[in-house]
Amino acid sequence: MARGQTPETGRIGLSRRQVLLGGAVAGAGAVVAVGADALTRRATTSGPTATRAEPHEVLHGGDTVAFYGEHQAGIATTPPQSCATLVALDLRPETDRDALRRMMRLLTDDAARLTQGRSALADSEPELAVVPARLTVTFGFGPELVRRTAAVAPPWLRPLPAFGIDRLDDAWSDGDLLLQVAADDALTVAHAVRMLLKDTRRFATVRWTQAGFRRARGSEASTTTMRNLFGQVDGTVNPEPGTADFDEVVWSRDGWLAGGTSMVVRRIAMNLDTWDKLDRDGREQSVGRLLANGAPLTGTQEHDEPDFEATTPLGFPVIPEFSHVRRARSDDPRERIFRRSYNYDDAPRGEEISASGLVFIACQADVDAQYVPLQRRLDELDLLNEWTTPIGSAVFAIPPGCAEGGFVGETLLA
Amino acid sequence: MARGQTPETGRIGLSRRQVLLGGAVAGAGAVVAVGADALTRRATTSGPTATRAEPHEVLHGGDTVAFYGEHQAGIATTPPQSCATLVALDLRPETDRDALRRMMRLLTDDAARLTQGRSALADSEPELAVVPARLTVTFGFGPELVRRTAAVAPPWLRPLPAFGIDRLDDAWSDGDLLLQVAADDALTVAHAVRMLLKDTRRFATVRWTQAGFRRARGSEASTTTMRNLFGQVDGTVNPEPGTADFDEVVWSRDGWLAGGTSMVVRRIAMNLDTWDKLDRDGREQSVGRLLANGAPLTGTQEHDEPDFEATTPLGFPVIPEFSHVRRARSDDPRERIFRRSYNYDDAPRGEEISASGLVFIACQADVDAQYVPLQRRLDELDLLNEWTTPIGSAVFAIPPGCAEGGFVGETLLA
Repeated sequence: MARGQTPETGRIGLSRRQVLLGGAVAGAGAVVAVGADALTRRATTSGPTATRAEPHEVLHGGDTVAFYGEHQAGIATTPPQSCATLVALDLRPETDRDALRRMMRLLTDDAARLTQGRSALADSEPELAVVPARLTVTFGFGPELVRRTAAVAPPWLRPLPAFGIDRLDDAWSDGDLLLQVAADDALTVAHAVRMLLKDTRRFATVRWTQAGFRRARGSEASTTTMRNLFGQVDGTVNPEPGTADFDEVVWSRDGWLAGGTSMVVRRIAMNLDTWDKLDRDGREQSVGRLLANGAPLTGTQEHDEPDFEATTPLGFPVIPEFSHVRRARSDDPRERIFRRSYNYDDAPRGEEISASGLVFIACQADVDAQYVPLQRRLDELDLLNEWTTPIGSAVFAIPPGCAEGGFVGETLLA
Repeated sequence: MARGQTPETGRIGLSRRQVLLGGAVAGAGAVVAVGADALTRRATTSGPTATRAEPHEVLHGGDTVAFYGEHQAGIATTPPQSCATLVALDLRPETDRDALRRMMRLLTDDAARLTQGRSALADSEPELAVVPARLTVTFGFGPELVRRTAAVAPPWLRPLPAFGIDRLDDAWSDGDLLLQVAADDALTVAHAVRMLLKDTRRFATVRWTQAGFRRARGSEASTTTMRNLFGQVDGTVNPEPGTADFDEVVWSRDGWLAGGTSMVVRRIAMNLDTWDKLDRDGREQSVGRLLANGAPLTGTQEHDEPDFEATTPLGFPVIPEFSHVRRARSDDPRERIFRRSYNYDDAPRGEEISASGLVFIACQADVDAQYVPLQRRLDELDLLNEWTTPIGSAVFAIPPGCAEGGFVGETLLA
C-alpha cells in the first residue's frame, strides 16, 4: 500500500455535502429553535456556498477518514494531518464510572459525525462541520480515569520517570482525558474541539491545550518527512503505517487495551536563539544527519542506513557518539516507538524573538518497554539536549476503536 | 480576471527549488560556518527531500506572489492565504530616521527573498524557506515611526476614536511597525516571522503577535467567502481585487502614501458560549443574512442585493433595523472598506470552553472618511455587539510597494 493512502479514507462530494447540510441542520433542532423544514428548503434552494470551484482546483476538504474500526483513527492515519489540537481534561470529582460511560457515548457519537462531515448532535454552527478535511478524533485515558472505572491499568500508565533534562510545568503535564483532534484545516479543528468540549463540560474541565502544525496539505509531497523548526528532517526512522512492523510496535494485545496503544505527549521547547549560534557543521554533528535532506552523515539519501562504524581519516566516528541519531538507536528491537509530532510556535514575550518547539507525540504498545529506555539514553547523552527542554509531559492509554453502535472505551466501561 | 488568479503569481518547480536550495545555503555563509562547496555538492547529489510526489497529488507549496510592484502584496492578494501572523513592534528609543532606513532595507531584502522561496540573507534554517506557499509580507507604519521620519503623517494615523463597545487591552493595541506575514502554510509563516524578527531585533521589540486562520487552501473553492467561528459567512460585501472599484476604495493617492493604503487591525472577541444560547432565527435576524449560505434575508443567493424596504406581512422590515448588514451599509459611497480578516482560537482558560474571535483587518484609502463613520454606526446599534467585544485596536499606514533595488518605505525614508 502506498503511503498517503489508507484503506479507510473516503471523500464526500458537493452534492453529498448539500444533503449533509440539510441533515445537519435538522439534527441540531434540539438546540436551534427553528423548523427543519424551512432550513432544508433553504439549503435546497440555495445550497452551500462552496459550489463555484475554479476549473484548475483540486479540492480535498471533503476527504474523510473512517471513524469506526479495530483501532482509533489518528494514530496510523497517514500522512499526519497538517493541524492538530490536543486537549487534556481533568475529571470533575463527581464523574463516576456511569458518568464516564455517558460521556464517552456522547463523545463517540459526535466524533463519528464530525469526522464524516456531519454536524454534531447539538451543533450550534452546523455549517462549519461540512469540511471534514480528514478530521480524526482520538481519545486517550489518563491514570485517574482508569482508576475510576476500577479496571486494571497497564503498569506504564503513570507519569514518566523524572529525567535530568526535564523542566516540567504542571500547566503542560498530565491529565485524565485526552482529545487529539487533527485535520488538514484549522477551522475544522477549531469547530470540532469546541463541539467536543461542549460534550465534556459537565464531566471535566480543560487542563491544557496544545495546538500544532506541519506543512499544509499540498505544500509538499505527502511522502515528505516533516521538518521541525530547527530545520531538521524529523521522523525518518518511523515504522510505516500499514506494515506488520508498525502493528508490532504500536498496537497493544493486552486486556481492555487490545487494539489500542499508548501516547506519550511531551512539550519540548526549542531554543532557536542559541541554536542560531551553532554553525551548520555543528548542527549536523549534533543530529548525525545532513540538514539538506536528512541523510545520515555516512550516506547521501534520507533513508540510507547510518553506518555507525564508519570513521574519519583521523579515526573519529563519522556519526558522533553524542549525536541524536546514535543515542536514539537501540540494539534491542523492542525499544522502538512511532512518532507523530507537531510544531508549535507561540507568541514571543519580552526580548524573545521566538517561543517555539515541538509537541512530541509517540505511540507504542508499552511505554516502559519501548519509550522509557530510549528516552533514558537520550537523557544521559544527546547533544540536542543543549537546545531543547522538555516543559510538559503526559502519558495516556489510547483504547481500541469501536464498531458502529459501540463507543470508544467500551472495553473498559461497558 | 478570475478571482483566485492574480497576474503576479508564479510557481517554482522542484528543479528550481533544488537550485534555490544550493543558493540559499551559500547565501547563509555569513552565519553558517561551512563551505558552500560542500553543501552545493550535497544538495546536487541528494537533492531536497520533497521529490517523491504521488501521481495524484497537486502541489502548491511552490506558488509565489510577486514581491515588487506598485502596491505591497498581501492586500489585494486573493484569495487571502489560509494562515497569517501579524506582529506589531515598538521602536527602540535610539532608532532614528537613519536606523529606520537601514531596518526597512534589511526587511525588504529578506521579504523579497522569502516570498520567492529563497532563504533570508542570514537564514539559519534555509531548508524551511523552500516552500513559499504564496507567502506575502506586508509592512505597516504606526504614528510614532512616521513622527521619527519628520514626514507629514496622514491625519487618520492615530488611535481610532473611542467606541462605546470597546474594551481595549493595551497588550493587543497600537504599535510602531506592523508585519503582516501570510501564506498557505503555517511552517512557512513561522519561519518568515522569525527571520524578519531577527532583522528588527536591533531596532524594535515585539509588542503583540496575533495568529489567525481561514479554511486551508484546497478545502473549499477559492471563491468561497470565509466563515467566522460564529458560522457566519463573513465578508460578502467586499470590493473585488483587480477591479476599479477595489482600487478606488483601497489605494491612497496622497504624497508618500500614494499606492499605499491604511490597515485597521481590531481584535474582536466572540462569545461563542452566549451565542450558543441564541436560536437560529435570532442569529439570522442579528446579521440580516441566512446562516446556510449568507444570502440576505430578502434573497436566496449570497450575492443577492439586500432589499431594505421589504416588509413582513405584519409590516416589520424583513431585514431588521438593528441587523449588522443594515447598520454596516451607508448611503455614502465613500464609506466603504475592504476586509481581509482571520479567525483566531486561543486555548480556553478555567471554565471557558473557547477563547475565540476575529482578527478583523480592514484596508481603505482614508480611515476617517471610510472606516470611522461605518464603525460609529455599528457602535451605536448593531445586534452583533451583544456577542462581540473589541479587545484590541491599531491603525497603520501601509506604504506603497517598491521596485527591485528599492525598499518599502523609501517614499518616506529615502
